[in-house]
Amino acid sequence: MTASTCEAHAASAEEVLALIRQCARPLATESVSIDRALGRVLRAPVCAPEDQPPFDRSAMDGFALRLDDAGTHFRILDEIRAGDWKPRLLQPSECVRIATGGALPGEGLQVVMKEDALAVGGQVELLRRSAECHIRFRGEDAQQGQELVAAGAVLSPGALALLASVGHTQPLVTRLPRVLHVATGNEIVPPDEAPAHGQIRDSNSMLVRAFLGQFGIEPRQLRVPEDEVVAKSEVRSSKSEGEGVDLLLLSGGASVGEHDFTRRLLEDIGWTILVSKTTTRPGKPLILATRGAALAFGLPGNPLAHFVCLHLYVRAALDTFNGRPTEPPFRRGVLAAELTAGGNARETYWPAQCRVSDGACALTPLRWSSSGDLTSLATANALIRVFAGCGNLECGVPVEFISTTPSP
Amino acid sequence: MTASTCEAHAASAEEVLALIRQCARPLATESVSIDRALGRVLRAPVCAPEDQPPFDRSAMDGFALRLDDAGTHFRILDEIRAGDWKPRLLQPSECVRIATGGALPGEGLQVVMKEDALAVGGQVELLRRSAECHIRFRGEDAQQGQELVAAGAVLSPGALALLASVGHTQPLVTRLPRVLHVATGNEIVPPDEAPAHGQIRDSNSMLVRAFLGQFGIEPRQLRVPEDEVVAKSEVRSSKSEGEGVDLLLLSGGASVGEHDFTRRLLEDIGWTILVSKTTTRPGKPLILATRGAALAFGLPGNPLAHFVCLHLYVRAALDTFNGRPTEPPFRRGVLAAELTAGGNARETYWPAQCRVSDGACALTPLRWSSSGDLTSLATANALIRVFAGCGNLECGVPVEFISTTPSP
Repeated sequence: MTASTCEAHAASAEEVLALIRQCARPLATESVSIDRALGRVLRAPVCAPEDQPPFDRSAMDGFALRLDDAGTHFRILDEIRAGDWKPRLLQPSECVRIATGGALPGEGLQVVMKEDALAVGGQVELLRRSAECHIRFRGEDAQQGQELVAAGAVLSPGALALLASVGHTQPLVTRLPRVLHVATGNEIVPPDEAPAHGQIRDSNSMLVRAFLGQFGIEPRQLRVPEDEVVAKSEVRSSKSEGEGVDLLLLSGGASVGEHDFTRRLLEDIGWTILVSKTTTRPGKPLILATRGAALAFGLPGNPLAHFVCLHLYVRAALDTFNGRPTEPPFRRGVLAAELTAGGNARETYWPAQCRVSDGACALTPLRWSSSGDLTSLATANALIRVFAGCGNLECGVPVEFISTTPSP
Repeated sequence: MTASTCEAHAASAEEVLALIRQCARPLATESVSIDRALGRVLRAPVCAPEDQPPFDRSAMDGFALRLDDAGTHFRILDEIRAGDWKPRLLQPSECVRIATGGALPGEGLQVVMKEDALAVGGQVELLRRSAECHIRFRGEDAQQGQELVAAGAVLSPGALALLASVGHTQPLVTRLPRVLHVATGNEIVPPDEAPAHGQIRDSNSMLVRAFLGQFGIEPRQLRVPEDEVVAKSEVRSSKSEGEGVDLLLLSGGASVGEHDFTRRLLEDIGWTILVSKTTTRPGKPLILATRGAALAFGLPGNPLAHFVCLHLYVRAALDTFNGRPTEPPFRRGVLAAELTAGGNARETYWPAQCRVSDGACALTPLRWSSSGDLTSLATANALIRVFAGCGNLECGVPVEFISTTPSP
């Protein structure tokens, strides 16, 4: 598949995804402090710099004594608290009081829980003795050099705690992509302005901003009139263009010629169009373009098309920037209500709510009154893939879907 | 159930959760800009201030003409682009060119798609005429006053776009809770310092910070020695205590008397202990305390206990602060591998990876070598609830779990 063949015909979702993965490149990396690394994508594996735990530690509050000493009465020589380092050779009938986390004084020992012992003065009598050592041995969790977190991992709270525990406080992650978002359209006004008759508020800029915000990305945003000269000049002179964007998103207006307007604007500023329409609904007039390793998307103006194209395509671009394995985003679930697809000629992405119910992924299709309708997007967390020509789907049938939550 | 009864015995997870919901109060609200409201929790429903869409809009590029005019040839009087407002009464044989999103010039009209018409000069000939109006009628998506986003909703990108579309740019959300986190323990050093023999790096502070960061909460954090006088003085003099915290988290050290240390510290600064141990594993020595409407948790020092207590209990406190319906956090899934629970006497929360597989929620238990082992936490996104006395569980059996991802 070459760029030219895809440009000539309407591309399937799979073709668009393949082109995105083919054209985008993993972005460069940067080191960030773990304090600011939540949600970032690790690009080099993190290995244990030393055995974990680094020394034999007591797993209980109790008394450390020789494993080979079968006696019941012991003399308490010392106390080892967590943080102490008091190596010593214990003799038969000797023990040390030891706290959870405390470093064992030597090898060949066992910890008897304080609940199983009776301490009086400097002596302790064992009431019970189990086979358990109650010791977390050096290297038990991970051996020196063992991979702890794999490249490509999203740094979750658990992963960050693990990095902290081994002193890896400056992980190497993908730098954040530079994103420019341009909303065009003569009919849109900023959300905090009152639209005149015939106008509507710009909601796509908020959608794009919040979608990217989930990944820690803050786009620069422009709102330009549907005037070729003005639009071209504003985009060209924007600081982001000067710095070189990784991702350019254009939200089309809804007036006649929106698609051609976006297309000409992209071509005029040096982009090569790879896709100019798709076989899917919504999002048929999607534009995909490249310029070097950068990607541009011309997103059809209606909100539902924006929602679908962001989650299906732009998300795939972000994953590729992060060097993440390019697995198909489709999962399997079960319909929790009838879906009146009505045999649409094009593959359709239907907004839905996904819930875990009795062990299954249950998908409830949301009302789709029109592609301009935003009301379903307030609660949607999934998009059901309805294949072309598919009639109405009954409750309980298996369906494919993509998740629209940011969790991997 | 009263506070005193719970303090006297080991509380079950359900008892602890019930106490949290009983003691915590929804926090006050604040208005924030939608640009900064991602992930915040809406506290007052948002209703449509006017019909949505606010006027009849064309759903297609085409020609608007009278529904009752069965002719095939029409004179093009004008062009209506998106954003224009050009009301007029169309006569038979008259039409206007109209763009997607354009305001219809009047009532009783239909839009014929441009693909179904042949326009030459100021005239258009209809090639086909469908029964479809291709109009998004005023109020079709939502009528004035209709609830668009419910109180308690987490503001997702879709919900924020919907708010933008109706000009609701300053939503009322829960103010962020004031959280103070205090890590105690003589054996811990900051992650970027080299621990001496017997010491370990503090990973719990990172875990707490990142866990809260997922909800936009930035805690103040202290690291204090396990010295009652010093600890009390540092906590008391911290700015957060002066301002009144909503949530106080104490990460216990691991040395002898950690539990009593935390308990005395809390009592000395005015907290009432409600729970001082639980029947669950890990997290048996959990402390729950109140002071007015504020909550404090004494979290047992080991990392896995931290992970479990944060997701099971602290998460419930955050939900209650947000005034969200207090639904039980337990979901149902299916084991994707054997779980060697081994008949533990206490209810156990086992780290696991949850994946959607063939329509089911499949849970793979992760290695649990010890409660001090952080390696499983890098990939865990769920905790399986293993009931007390439960033996080994075979692959394929249904299990209860809680999700540890922040998505609702």
